[in-house]
Amino acid sequence: MDQMDTVPESAKPAEGEPPFVLREVRGAVGVLTMNRPAQRNALSLGMIAALTKEIRALGQEPDVKVIVLTGDGPAFSSGHDLKELTKHRADEDNGRSFFVNVMTACSRLMLSVVRSPKPVIAAVNGIATAAGCQLVASCDLAVASDDSRFATPGVNIGLFCSTPMVTLSRNVPRKAAMEMLLTGEMVPAEDAKAMGLINRAVPADRLMEETMAFAETIASKPTATVKIGKEAFYRQAELTLDEAYGYAATVMVDNMLHAEAQEGIGAFLEKRKPNWPDGK
Amino acid sequence: MDQMDTVPESAKPAEGEPPFVLREVRGAVGVLTMNRPAQRNALSLGMIAALTKEIRALGQEPDVKVIVLTGDGPAFSSGHDLKELTKHRADEDNGRSFFVNVMTACSRLMLSVVRSPKPVIAAVNGIATAAGCQLVASCDLAVASDDSRFATPGVNIGLFCSTPMVTLSRNVPRKAAMEMLLTGEMVPAEDAKAMGLINRAVPADRLMEETMAFAETIASKPTATVKIGKEAFYRQAELTLDEAYGYAATVMVDNMLHAEAQEGIGAFLEKRKPNWPDGK
Amino acid sequence: MDQMDTVPESAKPAEGEPPFVLREVRGAVGVLTMNRPAQRNALSLGMIAALTKEIRALGQEPDVKVIVLTGDGPAFSSGHDLKELTKHRADEDNGRSFFVNVMTACSRLMLSVVRSPKPVIAAVNGIATAAGCQLVASCDLAVASDDSRFATPGVNIGLFCSTPMVTLSRNVPRKAAMEMLLTGEMVPAEDAKAMGLINRAVPADRLMEETMAFAETIASKPTATVKIGKEAFYRQAELTLDEAYGYAATVMVDNMLHAEAQEGIGAFLEKRKPNWPDGK
Repeated sequence: MDQMDTVPESAKPAEGEPPFVLREVRGAVGVLTMNRPAQRNALSLGMIAALTKEIRALGQEPDVKVIVLTGDGPAFSSGHDLKELTKHRADEDNGRSFFVNVMTACSRLMLSVVRSPKPVIAAVNGIATAAGCQLVASCDLAVASDDSRFATPGVNIGLFCSTPMVTLSRNVPRKAAMEMLLTGEMVPAEDAKAMGLINRAVPADRLMEETMAFAETIASKPTATVKIGKEAFYRQAELTLDEAYGYAATVMVDNMLHAEAQEGIGAFLEKRKPNWPDGK
Repeated sequence: MDQMDTVPESAKPAEGEPPFVLREVRGAVGVLTMNRPAQRNALSLGMIAALTKEIRALGQEPDVKVIVLTGDGPAFSSGHDLKELTKHRADEDNGRSFFVNVMTACSRLMLSVVRSPKPVIAAVNGIATAAGCQLVASCDLAVASDDSRFATPGVNIGLFCSTPMVTLSRNVPRKAAMEMLLTGEMVPAEDAKAMGLINRAVPADRLMEETMAFAETIASKPTATVKIGKEAFYRQAELTLDEAYGYAATVMVDNMLHAEAQEGIGAFLEKRKPNWPDGK
Repeated sequence: MDQMDTVPESAKPAEGEPPFVLREVRGAVGVLTMNRPAQRNALSLGMIAALTKEIRALGQEPDVKVIVLTGDGPAFSSGHDLKELTKHRADEDNGRSFFVNVMTACSRLMLSVVRSPKPVIAAVNGIATAAGCQLVASCDLAVASDDSRFATPGVNIGLFCSTPMVTLSRNVPRKAAMEMLLTGEMVPAEDAKAMGLINRAVPADRLMEETMAFAETIASKPTATVKIGKEAFYRQAELTLDEAYGYAATVMVDNMLHAEAQEGIGAFLEKRKPNWPDGK
């Protein structure tokens, strides 16, 4: 799926509205903040387009090593914008082509996180439901405030969380995923941590501090190496064991001939700090 | 595998014997109780056939939304009936064709749970071993009394639990599955919960009450939506990430045009209770 | 990959050096001890070759039922020998063909564990990092001293742990694997147990005692049955549910006609101890 030439105009907010997503670069960490607190950062087409655009842009930004994704207000994201979803019901096709557009754009957003050359960390600042929960699961890593809660409640409104299930079921045990999907009930941060949906639950007032420390740790690693590894991670996951070893061995041989490994291994053997080629 | 026209006559108990499986419909929940307590609900051909038949029948029953599967007596199920298994040893083929029949029937039972349009919840009332443990793992959800225990002990009698491993290894982490399979040792309910084999362990005297409450929560959800979601869950699990998103997006578009989503989303936006099209 | 005729000469230590791996058979358990404590049992080509050779040899040894793999000194294994890895930098191809050899040999070692007809248990006696952590994850089962620690720290030296990720990501939840790979940080034994990387963490002074008890439990099981089951475990894991049931049913039918199942089921029904055909 070619992802670069398809960001729609909708990433622009309506006249007089603030941007959907705020972008701030703090050192080597790019922080994206969903900026529709009153709408609980619903994933409207505008929000989806803006997020996709910013994630791709930060992916190309040389000074940014890690991306943090968070939300303003009480919710991380409540998922699709239901008002928007029903706007085209009266169309000749009952809205089908519009739904297809929304689903395509949303899956493209999730894949832009997975395909980004930079690690993406969710800093979950409150409820994350439906496609909002999917966004957390799609991130490489996730930190949540301990009062955050997670759910895939589509079943309650007659619209099963079928796309969120794709990534949820690849992150947590099967029966735990099924329970979330069939009951739609809220899962507290502590349980989300136990089932593997997030890496850490931290006190709410320390969320950004802890997430930034996590991000900076990873940002200190050599850039090409991280890119090579992240790409290999998702690719090998879909291969058989034999295929995965064949593929991963090729990746490691190429990695070993890269300037970063030359410097890193040299520094290790000489017991000095590495001087990464990209200047970090 | 066409499943509908292959239930053998053996689902009928011998003259004067009680039925293999008791069926009771409580509101929107169909409860199936394995009814051979003295045989620890062994999965004889008769029990397998009766269970398969009842699960399929409840799957078609319009008033039943959720299926609960439990056992009478101290065991949920102890797995295959070993006496029956050895009955055909003296046959010309040493029983091979009989074994093939048993294995085929048993796998068909497990797949009838997975393929049922209704969620199936195991209410585990005691030990669940070998194919009995497989039956728990095959259910979408599982609640167990806190004195229940789980094992795949085939290795102890020279018959490795190879078919139980198929679903066990898709529910719990790899080394936990391997330990159960190689040692054959009993796993208490609390550990089964920690490893993801069951959703909940509850006091034994509250097993049916808690399971029914769980079932009723799910039974209150719109029927077609649950059916769509359950089917999609197992199908997308076997696809690559790209394929899974492509498939799940199609599922969601169709779901969105369904009367249940129309009603559910409408009710949500109008802040009223949904009036599901099927009358629930 | 034909594995039997490719063990290089390098399994022999240099003149005057002790063997890379010590082998001791205790009852039905073959114990292999990595024997380069001063080098933290680095997986040099010599160590890799010696381990591969011994694992294959024990796999064919009729009296050995289970293999235990441990290390002498403070480390289980620290992974590749970085000094050796850089030795061929000045070659015409900058060492590429040498790296290919190392990667091929190392993957072959890991697969020799998975493909061994005998269960392999890691007895982790200290740090297990990079390919050393991969070796633990590749074992069927793992016990660790409670002061052991695990990491995939390649990212710190510009060489992402891409081959270790293959087996790490098949043992632990996705975000836990990603955190280990991206941060390179040490994971204590207790956390490794919680995420599924090891089966048990035990007091350091009881490591071998507990591991031997675990090994002897499994060694008491019938040999052919264990072999059949272990092979089926890894093979079915890569199939769809339908395919896996079809395959596993065939495995069970063959198993049921094996002398071990005949004896084991007979003994069970006659309430006597089985007298396994291989004399155990």
